[in-house]
Amino acid sequence: MSNTEHEAADRHLHRLVLFSDAVFAIAITLLAIEIHPPEHWHGVADLFGQMGHKLWAYAVSFAVIGVYWISHRRIFARLRGANGVLDVLNLVVLGLVALLPLTTELLWEHASGEATLVYVGLVAAIGVAMSVVWGYAAFAGELAGRVHRGEALFTLARTAVAPGLMCGLILFSLNHIWGLIPLALAIAAFVAGGRFMRRRAAARIDDAEEAAA
Amino acid sequence: MSNTEHEAADRHLHRLVLFSDAVFAIAITLLAIEIHPPEHWHGVADLFGQMGHKLWAYAVSFAVIGVYWISHRRIFARLRGANGVLDVLNLVVLGLVALLPLTTELLWEHASGEATLVYVGLVAAIGVAMSVVWGYAAFAGELAGRVHRGEALFTLARTAVAPGLMCGLILFSLNHIWGLIPLALAIAAFVAGGRFMRRRAAARIDDAEEAAA
Amino acid sequence: MSNTEHEAADRHLHRLVLFSDAVFAIAITLLAIEIHPPEHWHGVADLFGQMGHKLWAYAVSFAVIGVYWISHRRIFARLRGANGVLDVLNLVVLGLVALLPLTTELLWEHASGEATLVYVGLVAAIGVAMSVVWGYAAFAGELAGRVHRGEALFTLARTAVAPGLMCGLILFSLNHIWGLIPLALAIAAFVAGGRFMRRRAAARIDDAEEAAA
Amino acid sequence: MSNTEHEAADRHLHRLVLFSDAVFAIAITLLAIEIHPPEHWHGVADLFGQMGHKLWAYAVSFAVIGVYWISHRRIFARLRGANGVLDVLNLVVLGLVALLPLTTELLWEHASGEATLVYVGLVAAIGVAMSVVWGYAAFAGELAGRVHRGEALFTLARTAVAPGLMCGLILFSLNHIWGLIPLALAIAAFVAGGRFMRRRAAARIDDAEEAAA
Repeated sequence: MSNTEHEAADRHLHRLVLFSDAVFAIAITLLAIEIHPPEHWHGVADLFGQMGHKLWAYAVSFAVIGVYWISHRRIFARLRGANGVLDVLNLVVLGLVALLPLTTELLWEHASGEATLVYVGLVAAIGVAMSVVWGYAAFAGELAGRVHRGEALFTLARTAVAPGLMCGLILFSLNHIWGLIPLALAIAAFVAGGRFMRRRAAARIDDAEEAAA
Repeated sequence: MSNTEHEAADRHLHRLVLFSDAVFAIAITLLAIEIHPPEHWHGVADLFGQMGHKLWAYAVSFAVIGVYWISHRRIFARLRGANGVLDVLNLVVLGLVALLPLTTELLWEHASGEATLVYVGLVAAIGVAMSVVWGYAAFAGELAGRVHRGEALFTLARTAVAPGLMCGLILFSLNHIWGLIPLALAIAAFVAGGRFMRRRAAARIDDAEEAAA
Repeated sequence: MSNTEHEAADRHLHRLVLFSDAVFAIAITLLAIEIHPPEHWHGVADLFGQMGHKLWAYAVSFAVIGVYWISHRRIFARLRGANGVLDVLNLVVLGLVALLPLTTELLWEHASGEATLVYVGLVAAIGVAMSVVWGYAAFAGELAGRVHRGEALFTLARTAVAPGLMCGLILFSLNHIWGLIPLALAIAAFVAGGRFMRRRAAARIDDAEEAAA
Repeated sequence: MSNTEHEAADRHLHRLVLFSDAVFAIAITLLAIEIHPPEHWHGVADLFGQMGHKLWAYAVSFAVIGVYWISHRRIFARLRGANGVLDVLNLVVLGLVALLPLTTELLWEHASGEATLVYVGLVAAIGVAMSVVWGYAAFAGELAGRVHRGEALFTLARTAVAPGLMCGLILFSLNHIWGLIPLALAIAAFVAGGRFMRRRAAARIDDAEEAAA
């Protein structure tokens, strides 16, 4: 790529991030907009009693969007440019994120198993869409600079599976306390796997540099 | 232009893009805000049955705004600066984009031919407004650097016509399956025309550079 | 100022602009959010007949915020830095701009002389707040680089008076056609005055440079 | 840190600021969205009479978010980078800020002592969350460059305590005029303490530079 093309790719990436950040920020702030104080309440305890389930759903969804924003930030921090395919794949992620306020409403209005299923389904779908973004950038689109194949595949799998699994296990643990055990195991596996993979990737790149020297 | 003027024009352009991105992001996220879960529903299938037409309209409008954001990004990536006229023309585009959430509501509440007409009319109007932005930047305002006349005219025509035509044909195909034929032909024509024009533009610029050398 | 201080002032200014742009963009996009399609309508003409006054109020307010965004952009393009006082004065402008969606609702629901009065009053108040921003930056805060005193004072007066006056005259002209005469005169005066002042400012700076040479 | 790591930390910080600004901007603009004009009103005085308490609550909350935005800007202007912990701590701040529109509604609908308590409680909680961000950045995360220990601790305490205290005293003063006395004393103490600490910090850094020379 020439210098001008580099600059254009960088500008493209910058604008894509700008746009994504705005959508994430709006979705996360709109979570609270459908929550209204109750008509009648007596004392602070009663207020929280009446609003507790809504505030709880708000906190869960805020955490979900927050985690996805961090995930999005990490993926895009590794990219060197953007193209039209990335635009479209990223739009799919944003289109699903923008549905979270609506699905949060579902969660607090109908605290049923099926509402939870729809909610976890959406969270899982965002994870899959995000992993498609990363998979395209790392493998097909060559937008991510030098990448260690194993580490990139692990990131792909973790991005696709972790959010839905974690969110499902957390909501499951509310009713079945032993759900915390697989939750703890899953977190440990993702953290340990991530460290192992980063170390392997660093070693491989060192090898490559030594070989080149 | 002096260096300071270059920098000022660049800052102007940057701020215009920033503002436009925010409006696009808000419009695209607000699409979902008027969608609420139904009062009563039994099972996931029933939920999607009741909400299907809204989610469908949401997906269509999300795609429309997404396509226009990509189109806006492409046009502005070719600009070298901005001025007051571009500010105003761009505001017209944004003012029409901000009406899409309202028109989407129309689409799902009154799934009539006339609601579709209003919707496609707005989509077409945004396309025309966007092509005016490009036409001004490329021809009158001299904001787009060196431009190949034929390629710029083709871009102008495609920006003006394609979104309304495509959107109309897609919605038409929902009821009349043979509408997919002109849709496929239109897409093929736009893609082939775009490639041909880019090649001609590249050749002409090479010629100019040879002549200059 | 040292280099680091220059950079810090520049970052401060950049973030202030970022924040302001987001508020402008949200206010302008929210204008349409309280507009909903009517329950019953027969044909496109009837739809526009029922929604006409809302769309009209939307267009007016979109133009008002658009004009103020352009005005804000122009003022901030002349600044070299920002400080805490500018933060606060700018917040006052944004706080008034964020009230425009609410006041637009007033305009379409109660198309009375008094609703118009409140609306024009808010528009005028934003103009005054904006001129305070400019006045502080140019005279007290020394944030605007080298400034020609007469030109800066003219900009101050125009920023304070023009938007309210123009908006009032436009809404007045809807009922009293001869209101277009003072409107045309006012526009001519502002444009001619602006040109004259810019020419004088350029001449004075040339003189200063000659004297310095 | 290598050059690339510096650049990556800078980009991370930039994106965190971008996202935070968008959330602040949306929260501050949404404050007005639940305010609607009354159904019936006779004259401007009556309109303001009916809407006065809402506009007053709007102004208070706008000032609160404005003050926190300024506080956020100041803290982040001192940072040299960002990391995952800062992301999470910052998200907590934003999650509380996004609850302000809802709590403002509470304030105007139930102008009781307990509604005020909840409101002041949220304002105080944001202050504490913000001071955790600063405390982490300055002490644990080493994200703030060279910092004078005393000055950083004073900033920590002021960020945690000032907003809740001031907001409480202002709302208290509405009913008990003598509340203005502790308010004035608190402001004087914060301003004087801030100046003293900045002077001490500057002196200590000069000493360090002399010792190094």
